[in-house]
Amino acid sequence: MPDFVPTIFQKIIDGEIPCHRVFENEHVLAFLDVAPLSAGHTLVIPKQQAAFLHELTPECGAALGQALVLISRAVVQATGVLEYNILQNNGGRANQAVFHVHFHIIPKPSVDEGLGLVWKATERDDAEAMATSIRSNLS
Amino acid sequence: MPDFVPTIFQKIIDGEIPCHRVFENEHVLAFLDVAPLSAGHTLVIPKQQAAFLHELTPECGAALGQALVLISRAVVQATGVLEYNILQNNGGRANQAVFHVHFHIIPKPSVDEGLGLVWKATERDDAEAMATSIRSNLS
Repeated sequence: MPDFVPTIFQKIIDGEIPCHRVFENEHVLAFLDVAPLSAGHTLVIPKQQAAFLHELTPECGAALGQALVLISRAVVQATGVLEYNILQNNGGRANQAVFHVHFHIIPKPSVDEGLGLVWKATERDDAEAMATSIRSNLS
Repeated sequence: MPDFVPTIFQKIIDGEIPCHRVFENEHVLAFLDVAPLSAGHTLVIPKQQAAFLHELTPECGAALGQALVLISRAVVQATGVLEYNILQNNGGRANQAVFHVHFHIIPKPSVDEGLGLVWKATERDDAEAMATSIRSNLS
């Protein structure tokens, strides 16, 4: 289970497994993905041990958001590729493979490289009820 | 051009176009996507006007990261769907449609609903040089 068996990312944080490190501070570590979708594909992870984004502390979320801005800027400069996707998957059905929160920064140098997306919009008539429910869970 | 003609999201921030609002603070606004991939599909946007993530101030990135944690938690509670994807696209080639930074929170209630991903990993032998270049652009 994610909470008890160290994931490969926990071992990278602990220095037990090497990585191509690009950034580190008190809350965040960033390194190149070992199986990149494109050159410069970078992972940004919290040091807090959590499988899903909604399990993080808000402070940890803030540290990740700040790091994403700065590291994206450096990835754009290093690769010379202005277009990119930020992706963070929660759960196996949502394509999560390692159960430690990680944000992907994936440069999109051409149509055929980088992340591919399948976009099937739906029509819904329950939007206001859903918005009300989300709001009530925020307060 | 994104910097000079107000996008539809700027008009939502300015209150000129209505939305199904779920959260707002000094830096961030969140509302339901009008063409959702699944029930509860939410957009989280900065009030800072910028097309791409790397153009934001680090402070704005921090506010977005904090909001993503809290709003994801509320979306999970409201939908009862534990699995979801966070996506943020930069550039038309990367599927960006509105040129104001926006993070998608997209519940994944089943394999056929929500976001679809196409994942084609590549092999590269330039990882250490790339990591060095990203690091040098961060310092």
